[in-house]
Amino acid sequence: MQTSKTCVVVGAGPGNGLSLGRKFTGEGYSVALLARNPKNLANLKSDLPEAHTFECDVTQLGSTQKAFDDVRQELGPIDTLLYNAGAGVFGSIDDVDAEAFEQAWRTNTLGAFNCIKTVLPDMRSQGGGTIIIIGATAAKRGGARFAAFASAKAAQYNLAQSLARHLGPEKIHIAYIVIDGVIDIPRTRQRMPDKPDEFFLDPNDIADAVYDVSQQAPSAWTFEFDVRPYCETW
Amino acid sequence: MQTSKTCVVVGAGPGNGLSLGRKFTGEGYSVALLARNPKNLANLKSDLPEAHTFECDVTQLGSTQKAFDDVRQELGPIDTLLYNAGAGVFGSIDDVDAEAFEQAWRTNTLGAFNCIKTVLPDMRSQGGGTIIIIGATAAKRGGARFAAFASAKAAQYNLAQSLARHLGPEKIHIAYIVIDGVIDIPRTRQRMPDKPDEFFLDPNDIADAVYDVSQQAPSAWTFEFDVRPYCETW
Amino acid sequence: MQTSKTCVVVGAGPGNGLSLGRKFTGEGYSVALLARNPKNLANLKSDLPEAHTFECDVTQLGSTQKAFDDVRQELGPIDTLLYNAGAGVFGSIDDVDAEAFEQAWRTNTLGAFNCIKTVLPDMRSQGGGTIIIIGATAAKRGGARFAAFASAKAAQYNLAQSLARHLGPEKIHIAYIVIDGVIDIPRTRQRMPDKPDEFFLDPNDIADAVYDVSQQAPSAWTFEFDVRPYCETW
Amino acid sequence: MQTSKTCVVVGAGPGNGLSLGRKFTGEGYSVALLARNPKNLANLKSDLPEAHTFECDVTQLGSTQKAFDDVRQELGPIDTLLYNAGAGVFGSIDDVDAEAFEQAWRTNTLGAFNCIKTVLPDMRSQGGGTIIIIGATAAKRGGARFAAFASAKAAQYNLAQSLARHLGPEKIHIAYIVIDGVIDIPRTRQRMPDKPDEFFLDPNDIADAVYDVSQQAPSAWTFEFDVRPYCETW
Repeated sequence: MQTSKTCVVVGAGPGNGLSLGRKFTGEGYSVALLARNPKNLANLKSDLPEAHTFECDVTQLGSTQKAFDDVRQELGPIDTLLYNAGAGVFGSIDDVDAEAFEQAWRTNTLGAFNCIKTVLPDMRSQGGGTIIIIGATAAKRGGARFAAFASAKAAQYNLAQSLARHLGPEKIHIAYIVIDGVIDIPRTRQRMPDKPDEFFLDPNDIADAVYDVSQQAPSAWTFEFDVRPYCETW
Repeated sequence: MQTSKTCVVVGAGPGNGLSLGRKFTGEGYSVALLARNPKNLANLKSDLPEAHTFECDVTQLGSTQKAFDDVRQELGPIDTLLYNAGAGVFGSIDDVDAEAFEQAWRTNTLGAFNCIKTVLPDMRSQGGGTIIIIGATAAKRGGARFAAFASAKAAQYNLAQSLARHLGPEKIHIAYIVIDGVIDIPRTRQRMPDKPDEFFLDPNDIADAVYDVSQQAPSAWTFEFDVRPYCETW
Repeated sequence: MQTSKTCVVVGAGPGNGLSLGRKFTGEGYSVALLARNPKNLANLKSDLPEAHTFECDVTQLGSTQKAFDDVRQELGPIDTLLYNAGAGVFGSIDDVDAEAFEQAWRTNTLGAFNCIKTVLPDMRSQGGGTIIIIGATAAKRGGARFAAFASAKAAQYNLAQSLARHLGPEKIHIAYIVIDGVIDIPRTRQRMPDKPDEFFLDPNDIADAVYDVSQQAPSAWTFEFDVRPYCETW
Repeated sequence: MQTSKTCVVVGAGPGNGLSLGRKFTGEGYSVALLARNPKNLANLKSDLPEAHTFECDVTQLGSTQKAFDDVRQELGPIDTLLYNAGAGVFGSIDDVDAEAFEQAWRTNTLGAFNCIKTVLPDMRSQGGGTIIIIGATAAKRGGARFAAFASAKAAQYNLAQSLARHLGPEKIHIAYIVIDGVIDIPRTRQRMPDKPDEFFLDPNDIADAVYDVSQQAPSAWTFEFDVRPYCETW
């Protein structure tokens, strides 16, 4: 029998994805982790055995619909969607070709569109829901070396804002978290071996902030919030 | 013996001020409520007997320093400052004279400057602290009928952002909450008798959101977050 | 012999495209008008016989490269690029399917990327150039009924900002005009027959503003500017 | 007999003030230069003998009203107001005391309020007018070392935006120029002797940009525009 709420984490990797899954599991949610790469899913499953894992390519509407159908079948209707998928395509316009430019948009923006299109009927039939998109400072600022990433993140942000205005009155809470800084995962530590601990955002702390916003009462919903390490220069 | 943390709420009235005081009291803080008007303070004291009340005109540096000295004497060093003072001077440039225009700035902006100047030594000597400023959408948008209020709130917002950048590395967390909508207090209910309940922000929900941010781990501090009712048109 | 400067207007229709073409022609530029639709091009040619017209589908890199090669062959190296292409896909997420959502991005954002990629070598070999992108308020605000358009325009805006930072030092001036309102063309007049003249933006006035920015001295280049009718409510 | 239009430049010094005065004089305006310091005015008069100079402390409403009365008496009703007054109070909250914090606001913000209050009847009786405020990037971003300046400039910006919305329909054009960088005047050159020419904004180029916006047709008015040197890092 399905009693707990269901949370889907899209774009589950060893950083935010795992921490979000762990946090929402710990708070009593049934958690589905979606990722494209089966090996990543196997690793996540071994780190968080309570989670349910599903292969999904969010840039394909068919793949997305199938994964969400499977989630519903296994865990019941979806209450919370945390969209963490995002291709980090970095570099200036000279470094990025049209294909990579498009890939950044497909993963960050079109994937969010596809997932949200797919979960809306569920949330509507339940009288509400929560969708939080994991964003970045690049959504608010087009840096010289972020031609593709900043463009895709801005597209994702404005989509989120449009949805927040459109879906709020249906009690579907849309929020966007602007992550400003480098997340503490093995890959970033290896790339920046000289940085002290406090340089990094702890993904567990990000997950706590996301969880807090997901629990807000509807009289005072947050749409946008930023997080950064206390010692970040910004 | 002083064991609990001390939270000062500046600009304490029957809405946010009381709810913030109640929330932080409930979470174990010693709470000082500061207001200019002794009658308001007496009402607050009767609503929240655990709170400590202090008269203070934040637009006067001397009055501010005296009030904070009294708080320290009674409750020990200050950990958390919640700045809620704010003169709501509304109208276009045709409705507002130079005096009212100045008053809006003195209460919203200069008062925040004075209070923060005054608590900084305390927070520094303790190795950190938390300052959250209660702002409004007018900080981000100068509407036609908000010549004074939007100007003052923008001044308050940019001051807060400057402080966040400057004080973050000293582990002093500055945050700014953008309240978008009308708060549910007797005065606003009387002015808008036809509005349904869900039109209003519940100040207790605002206080919950402020409290969540005040407890964030320093690897993922929020500077800015907005709150509005789910059915708000924005 | 090629003596005048060459300006390419991409996305030439009966509004901004024609007015930009006319303005830059009048100021002594050789003007190339690019559009996908041959019938539109024929109409433009009859309205502005001095212009040179070229078929081009900017969402296809190959088509874009061919069109710009033809422009260069006929008119010499390109000094100024005015990007006016933009699919106006309107409606909330409920009104827009994944295909239309993608089309909005391809025309507004990917097309700009393709054109700019293509002209950069020209501008670099000449030691500079000017690129002005015709944007809209939706770039800065995700309205409920603008899920696709606001997302695409934000993507376009952040791309432009990244380019401005990256290419400024090479004396390539990138600017973004935020058009706030409805442009006066036969189609909009028919759709809004009751609106008075002053409700509309005159595309000739937009062209004047774009021209002014294109002529700025490099010590004081504008990146972003908005235009709206004096009586617009915003 | 008064035939030319009248332009008032408030806060006239050797940089923007002089350049604005020269530009508008050259374009046929009668120009009044207002400053607090009589010695500055004498220097300006010797640099630009066609200008009319008036002493004025814009932080005092009485002084402002008297100066504008004198301008009107000498040059006729005022068409254009360029507000360039601004105290550059720099430093973090630790460097700035309450008095300096207030001074920054009085000069940048209250002074603009006083001047605009004073010219509005003139502009209304003539059926329109133009007011352009000389702003800075600090209006949009509160840097750590700009506690007072960024707060005052944000207050000035939001005031301007409120006025633009309120006064546009009366054909009074309000615009705000965001200057991003260091202006080329003797004082800044002395302070930064190692910087190359292209590091600086030429105030004559700023004046050209301001003039362009002042001449826009009312169907396409700009409210906000930025200017920066082509090689500025931003």
